[in-house]
Formats: sequence, structure tokens, C-alpha cells
Amino acid sequence: MPAEIRVFAPATVANVAAGFDILGFALGQPGDEIAIRRRKEPGIVLHNRTDFAAMPLEPSANTAGVALQAMLAHLGSDAGFEITFLHKIKPGSGIGSSAASSAAAVYGANYLLGEPLTRQQLVPFAMEGEKLASGTAHADNVAPALMGGFVLVRSYHPLDLITIPAPPLLHCSIIHPQIELKTEDARKVLKKQISLKDAVVQWGNVAGLIAGLLREDYSLIGRSLHDVIVEPVRSLLIPGYDRIKDAAMQAGALGCSISGSGPSLFALSTSEADAQRISAAMLDVCRACGLQSESYVSGINSQGVRVL
Amino acid sequence: MPAEIRVFAPATVANVAAGFDILGFALGQPGDEIAIRRRKEPGIVLHNRTDFAAMPLEPSANTAGVALQAMLAHLGSDAGFEITFLHKIKPGSGIGSSAASSAAAVYGANYLLGEPLTRQQLVPFAMEGEKLASGTAHADNVAPALMGGFVLVRSYHPLDLITIPAPPLLHCSIIHPQIELKTEDARKVLKKQISLKDAVVQWGNVAGLIAGLLREDYSLIGRSLHDVIVEPVRSLLIPGYDRIKDAAMQAGALGCSISGSGPSLFALSTSEADAQRISAAMLDVCRACGLQSESYVSGINSQGVRVL
Repeated sequence: MPAEIRVFAPATVANVAAGFDILGFALGQPGDEIAIRRRKEPGIVLHNRTDFAAMPLEPSANTAGVALQAMLAHLGSDAGFEITFLHKIKPGSGIGSSAASSAAAVYGANYLLGEPLTRQQLVPFAMEGEKLASGTAHADNVAPALMGGFVLVRSYHPLDLITIPAPPLLHCSIIHPQIELKTEDARKVLKKQISLKDAVVQWGNVAGLIAGLLREDYSLIGRSLHDVIVEPVRSLLIPGYDRIKDAAMQAGALGCSISGSGPSLFALSTSEADAQRISAAMLDVCRACGLQSESYVSGINSQGVRVL
Repeated sequence: MPAEIRVFAPATVANVAAGFDILGFALGQPGDEIAIRRRKEPGIVLHNRTDFAAMPLEPSANTAGVALQAMLAHLGSDAGFEITFLHKIKPGSGIGSSAASSAAAVYGANYLLGEPLTRQQLVPFAMEGEKLASGTAHADNVAPALMGGFVLVRSYHPLDLITIPAPPLLHCSIIHPQIELKTEDARKVLKKQISLKDAVVQWGNVAGLIAGLLREDYSLIGRSLHDVIVEPVRSLLIPGYDRIKDAAMQAGALGCSISGSGPSLFALSTSEADAQRISAAMLDVCRACGLQSESYVSGINSQGVRVL
């Protein structure tokens, strides 16, 4: 066992249109990278060598620290760890920045402890990091970050995670408009009550999406990528949303919607060339709107977090 | 081509717990049986030789007649048909009695016309029969009656039907308490608005159910057979519901819920012996409640409507 390992945890897209709060998938890139080593003494020590100076380094105020504390408490372990954050997904992007930190920390520490826990067993601890970051212990980012591919959160109580391998051709284009949109605010705009009629449309699409993924039926995946509940309200918080989405669809996307709670958008397609073209088309609209944006093009990450 | 054919159309279970309005499956038995033949003249003539005297025989007032009229209008055909209803699923049972009549009529007539339409193409016409019967042109009974197995109604506008083969071990127990419960009344008790929180639970279960069916994962099917939206209100209209369901679960059912809009209950299991035991346990409770009930035990019908 090396004294120090480096761990990569991928960005993730939660919700996936119709799958609000229950579905997410992992990207090939971007991701978080950490270095982690055992300390001789108990306790967690965090260092920040990323571009983001604002990261809290007190373990109980840091998503990765909280996740790791929860895992060690569960194991009854007094092992100490030193974690250096090397690369960080931009916080507030909507592609699972906090989830990646938590996933990297618990996966790395579990690895150094001889893997007492499976990837799936790590999810509840990483969820504690999410709770710190956004106020709710949601699993639709941390589960795919840890387990790879698509992960369905069938139930939260009890936690029931179903892995769904990504169809091999699937590619993703991410556009991250550089606006601030807090997860808490994106939650605030949601209606607490929805119409049964809309809910029926939504669960028809969720069911279609799962069938499409399991059958590698790209047309069905595309037909099912509709969200009549959350996107109509959240998209109002993202300037130029409809035009950016239109551009993705015109450029051949299977579907396009908000990644997590935004402001990033994701679009799915069936080749890297398509994903590149879709990304370029979306960026063109952002530029025309005067909206500075970052973009990523990636396959689906079937493995999840890994030791580099 | 024989002058007259006999057609069997199976009973169906719609909703399937979490799949309200979007999912149904076909039973091996019971079912409707009709005799159908071409007439020399245009027009539809209906005869009733079933046990149910109250069936309207004016084609425009009969679900099968309306469905067949819609199909012939679509084909621009002036072919005439004579249909004799021989056996009928008890109307008002919640296992797709009207759907079976419509499915049998359009399938039989299409067969006698040399099959200009596929099974799937027959669904919209059979839906017209459903509209007459219940006021809404729902597809979650007629689609499995025509196509067999499980059918997901991914979308109604446009109609997008996804067939899902039934896992081979799956068996169904049906209990039909002899109370009157009109589809319209069962619709009336539904809330028009539901909480987003409940909807998320429901679509997690719908997604899990689809994944379980496609993977033949009986445990996942069972874990996903929960309905937090419709069952809590509709079950109040069925005397002894909770006790009958408890008996099914205690007897080893994967899950149990209301079939369609009730009053029948369905329970799924993984063998005929289990399904028989579950059926007996449910009937015991019905008897203890003084509730006269009929019961059926059946595998899933993978073929759908057929010529006998």
C-alpha cells in the first residue's frame, strides 16, 4: 500500500430531465482530484491547492471532511487522514462539485483502510457531505460519482440504489454558464404541490428513460428526456435557457435539460463528434447572449471514482 | 380464411401500483371470447350470449362497437361485421372488461380483413371504446390486451407504447370483491394536486419497477410495488382492503395493490403455487369480512389477444 494515493472523482449530472431527485450519471471529465494519506495520529487535516481559495478547511465545515468523519464514525475507526485538494470542479456549477469531493475522500480513505466497505456502502457517508453543502442528503450525485454509470435511487428510506450501465454510444455535452445559482435557491422555486396530470407525464418519461437505458434504445432515451415539473420553473433562473436548449436540439441532441439544480445544462448524444458539435452550438448561443460559459464534452464514466 | 373466427382477449391489470395511467399487463385468464364474421352488407351487428344481459347492442353505445367503428373509419372500409359475445369478464371488476371487448373486436375484424394493421396500430381504436366506457381514452388496459406482456404508455400525446416482456416466473392472483365501484367514482376520489415529495417517491418506484421487469429481478419488482399517490385514497372505497393486502403479503406476495380503478386487487408472485396460496389467503380474509369475492390465478399473458 503506497503511503499516499491520488484519487479522481467524476462530475455527475443529477435529475436527468424526468428523474428529479432519483437519477444521476457520472461523466468522464471534469472531476475532482485529491491526494490522500494516512496520518500517524487520529484526525482529519485538509489542504487546498486548487484554484478555489474559499474552500473551508475545518473538517466539520468541509463536505469531504464531513463525509469522511461519518465514515470513520461508522467504522469505529480512529484512523487519521491528510487530504490535499489538487483539482476541483467549479463549485456551484450543478455538476456535482460537492459530491465529487465527498466521493473522493471516502473512496480514498476506504482504499487506504483495505476496503472494508463497498462503493455502494460508501454512498450514505458521501450523502452527509451533500447535506452540509445543500441542506438535503440527496444521493443522485454521490451515488453515480462513487458507482459509475447511471444510478437510480429507487428509494431513500431505506436507501435502495440500482446501477444502470450507460449505453455505450452515449456522450454528454455540458455547458456551464458563469452565473451564480445556489442549490438552495434552485430548491426554493420548486412548487411543493404539482398536478397529478403532470406527474403522470413525468413518470411515463422516467419509466421510458429507464427502459431506453437498459435496452440501449437511443431513440427511446431521447423521447423520454422531458421534464414537465422542474425544468419549467428552474429554467427561468438561467438566462437564455430556451435558446441554448434549442441550439442543442437543432444540433442533433437526443435531449437537453438542466444538470442537477443548474445553472449547467447537459445534452446527450450518440457520438463524441455529435457531442462536440452540440457543445459548439450551445456555446455560440451563450456568446450571442453575452453569457460567459465553460463547456465539457465527455463519454459516460462507467467506473466512477478511481485511484489514479 | 374461415367465415367465422373466435377471438380471446385477456383481462388486464392497469396501474400496477406505482404506474398509474402508464403501465398495464395482460393475464392468462380470465378473458372475453367473441365470435366474429364478415357480413355481406356494411354495418356492425352485435349479439349477446354472455351471462350479462345488460350489455347495450347498439354499436355506438357498445365499447366493442365504438372501437370497431373507429377502426373501419380509419381504414375507409365499408366492411360489415357480425359479432357474438360469448364470454365476458364481469363488468366493473377493474381487470379491463371493456378493454377486452374492444381489443377482441378490433383484433378479430383486422384479422378477417387480412391484417392491414399491426397489434400496436389497433390500440388507438380500442382506446375509443375505453373513452365510451369510462370517459377517458386510457391505454393501460387496451395496450396490454392487444400486445401482451407489460406495456408502458410512455406518452399519450403522441401515443408511445413500449412493450416489456413479462419475467417468466411472474404469476398473478386476482381477487374481485363483489362490490360496485364505478371507474368514474374511482377517478373522482383522486386529488388533482399531489405533493412533489410523494411524486418523487412514486417515480422512484416506477423507475425501479421498469428496471426490475427488464432485468427479471423479482426482488426489485417487489420492492418497487408501492403506490403512495392513488392507493391511499382508492383503497378506502374497498372494504377490508388493508387486511386483504396484508394477507397477500404474509402469504409471500412480491407486492399487492389495486387492479386498475378497483375493486379488484392483484398480487404478484414467482410461481403458480405461490399465486394459489396467496389467492387462498386473500379469499380467507374476504370471507372473514363477509365480502363475497371471485378469484383468478394466472401467469402473465405474453401474447395478448388471439384467434382461438
